[in-house]
Amino acid sequence: MNKAKGKSSNALYERACNVLTGGVSRNTIFRKPHPYYVERAKGSYITDIDGTEYVDFANNMGSLIHGHSHPAIVEAVTEQLKKGSAFTMGTEAEVAYAELLIARSSGFEKIRFVNSGTEAVMAMIKASRAYTGKPKIAKAEGSYHGTYDYAEMSQTSNPENWGDLDKPNSVPLVQGTPQGVIDDVVIFPFNDIERTLNILEQNAEQIACVLIDPVPHRVGLFPATNEFVEAIYTWTRKNNALLAFDEVISFRVNYAGAQAAYKVNPDLTAMGKIIGGGFPIGALTGKSEIMQVLDPREKVLRYPHSGTFSANPISTTAGRVAMELFDENAVFSLNTLTMKARYQIEESIRIADVPVSITGVGAMFRMHFQADAPITYRETYQTLETKALINEFLDYLFIKENIIMINTCACMLATAHTQKEIDRLSEALLNGFKLIKPKLDQLD
Amino acid sequence: MNKAKGKSSNALYERACNVLTGGVSRNTIFRKPHPYYVERAKGSYITDIDGTEYVDFANNMGSLIHGHSHPAIVEAVTEQLKKGSAFTMGTEAEVAYAELLIARSSGFEKIRFVNSGTEAVMAMIKASRAYTGKPKIAKAEGSYHGTYDYAEMSQTSNPENWGDLDKPNSVPLVQGTPQGVIDDVVIFPFNDIERTLNILEQNAEQIACVLIDPVPHRVGLFPATNEFVEAIYTWTRKNNALLAFDEVISFRVNYAGAQAAYKVNPDLTAMGKIIGGGFPIGALTGKSEIMQVLDPREKVLRYPHSGTFSANPISTTAGRVAMELFDENAVFSLNTLTMKARYQIEESIRIADVPVSITGVGAMFRMHFQADAPITYRETYQTLETKALINEFLDYLFIKENIIMINTCACMLATAHTQKEIDRLSEALLNGFKLIKPKLDQLD
Repeated sequence: MNKAKGKSSNALYERACNVLTGGVSRNTIFRKPHPYYVERAKGSYITDIDGTEYVDFANNMGSLIHGHSHPAIVEAVTEQLKKGSAFTMGTEAEVAYAELLIARSSGFEKIRFVNSGTEAVMAMIKASRAYTGKPKIAKAEGSYHGTYDYAEMSQTSNPENWGDLDKPNSVPLVQGTPQGVIDDVVIFPFNDIERTLNILEQNAEQIACVLIDPVPHRVGLFPATNEFVEAIYTWTRKNNALLAFDEVISFRVNYAGAQAAYKVNPDLTAMGKIIGGGFPIGALTGKSEIMQVLDPREKVLRYPHSGTFSANPISTTAGRVAMELFDENAVFSLNTLTMKARYQIEESIRIADVPVSITGVGAMFRMHFQADAPITYRETYQTLETKALINEFLDYLFIKENIIMINTCACMLATAHTQKEIDRLSEALLNGFKLIKPKLDQLD
Repeated sequence: MNKAKGKSSNALYERACNVLTGGVSRNTIFRKPHPYYVERAKGSYITDIDGTEYVDFANNMGSLIHGHSHPAIVEAVTEQLKKGSAFTMGTEAEVAYAELLIARSSGFEKIRFVNSGTEAVMAMIKASRAYTGKPKIAKAEGSYHGTYDYAEMSQTSNPENWGDLDKPNSVPLVQGTPQGVIDDVVIFPFNDIERTLNILEQNAEQIACVLIDPVPHRVGLFPATNEFVEAIYTWTRKNNALLAFDEVISFRVNYAGAQAAYKVNPDLTAMGKIIGGGFPIGALTGKSEIMQVLDPREKVLRYPHSGTFSANPISTTAGRVAMELFDENAVFSLNTLTMKARYQIEESIRIADVPVSITGVGAMFRMHFQADAPITYRETYQTLETKALINEFLDYLFIKENIIMINTCACMLATAHTQKEIDRLSEALLNGFKLIKPKLDQLD
């Protein structure tokens, strides 16, 4: 323990409670009895102000594909810093980075940068409405797409309010959400072709886009089937609607994102997280013809779009360096290491003899406290009892094993991880599984 | 001219057009025949890749209160960079910065950081709905509040669609905006107490908040009168509604923002721009009781709120250093220099004998091509002919005088400016006024 000059997370949280609502600026970092505060981080290791060193498998909600403080990113940003961080003019950084991203997928023809995944999904929905002239969007029950009201519907719907699977309710996340928002979002069950097509058909004239995260973390972190994506793609072709992929999280799973796995390209794609190289960013990309709604050279500008910090040279420089390093070889190595990790964790599950399953794609996976991996949001849904046990498990891993995971029991790996950290993870999980086995065996 | 290794803005824009919609990522930087690209910037000077040096009076749409690459900000960010840029944990940076901002105004009791002004205004509107349980917002005709649909209504309404001043139409900015958004935004004429109260009264049961930028740039950059703010404040007290200030731009005008000028405090305030010290940021602050809707410790969490990059230690460190430097003395000096600038420009107007007026507060001002300063959005509204002349004027200033201004003919000063740059500005403007005087005199 190498405690920083009399500082403690406990005392800092007391200060925080006086000025930040709930003592935190993002609920993600909230934990009882208090959050922990970072002193410094390097690669896959974080040291908090109390002097404890952790192995980080959360990587800021999957946004750091190379772990912390990658030297090439630090160097490039340090250089750009001296030249300025934001202007009312362009920079070569935004052009060079746009070129790099566009080259990664045949579905990317034009791009625009924004400041977050939330802004990217909002821009994607607005562009879909502007292009089709239609007001509604369709999204999957349980899927997370940032904090734009429309994208948030049914993100946390539960057995009390989710309704019939043939026609799931559109359930607001935030109190006071206008009825207009509730009415303009159509909810479908992910990967359920028949039900989804029926639901879409009932709103065919009004749907601007079908919004899909191809590997939705909150739904259960299992991929959209090719059949499902193709069925929706075909439906959108017939109904003047767009296929809109949210790859803010899932872009990390492959060189060209999760969409590389499907035969069809989405019309529009929203990105964020890893494409910022550790800095705030979002991006909207897709077919030129559709992106044209944003073009200020058009006689009628259908979707005027700007943003003070959008495409700033810090985020685009950091992002470019990060994505240059995340080349086909890096993607392959990271995904191979993750497969190894999953194999070792499955071994831990077998040895501990616990009813735990794993889902995931590429360098991300999620553990479920159920013997058979869930294949729907409603199967993934956790009772309060299960949630409490997951928190107990994550607390054990954090406090006793010094392992950081995402609060859904998910890991987002980075190129900074090596076999050493994977071994530590699978051993820590084995210890944790053994500890909670009696309670796990008693879950419904 | 010190041209960077064979680069030119013209050639770079050609590359940009292949990958970015309209060749730009933000319409703000778009200009004909092409935008210009920055090589490096320092203080109030920018050098583009063609080798031309400009004096910058735009400061990235008013977001750089100290100009470019301030050494103290560069140093602090460079240090933080080595320790990491984003974590799934807290940092002392967010707590220290929250404390600093909270201390600046008695209306700030709790705060939360987000990634942009757009996100801050969106969070403010969502918090208002969650607190009051009501769906509508009221906003001023012509005022800009970022890119959240509700906040965008009637931002650019024109004589063809703005309707009767007694009940201005709610006019969407983006094609395909859902009818629900149009219906849930009530538009009022800024600073018009009688009409505004009548309009609010007609929607009294449904208004969650009245959204006000106290110095609205797009309305005309004149301040809300004390009487107007007090009348709205009083109305909100009687009608279970909140007074919500958008100070994303206007926070720069005083140590405690533009709100320091009024007898009443807003319930909530959105901030952005200068509080990022040149990095992407936004913030929502206000009364503890209202901010509590965001508290994850509450039994019923009315407004779940997070964000991958929110409160990251780069933006909060840069912001803290910037705002420490922008102390009461710095605010006073900058505002005094701006008064000097306005005085000199008024001299230029007199000498050139042109029908031009100036509006503004603190370190920002806007020139209007009309002899009497406008006091309403409808008076500020420019015909196509006036717009064309403004563009000609701004092109002259940019190309021939190497002066960067905002495309509304506005200047946002920074502490990096000195008397030398002010002299250059007033001389350049004098030359420009003389040049366009024949056309100016012929405007309606």
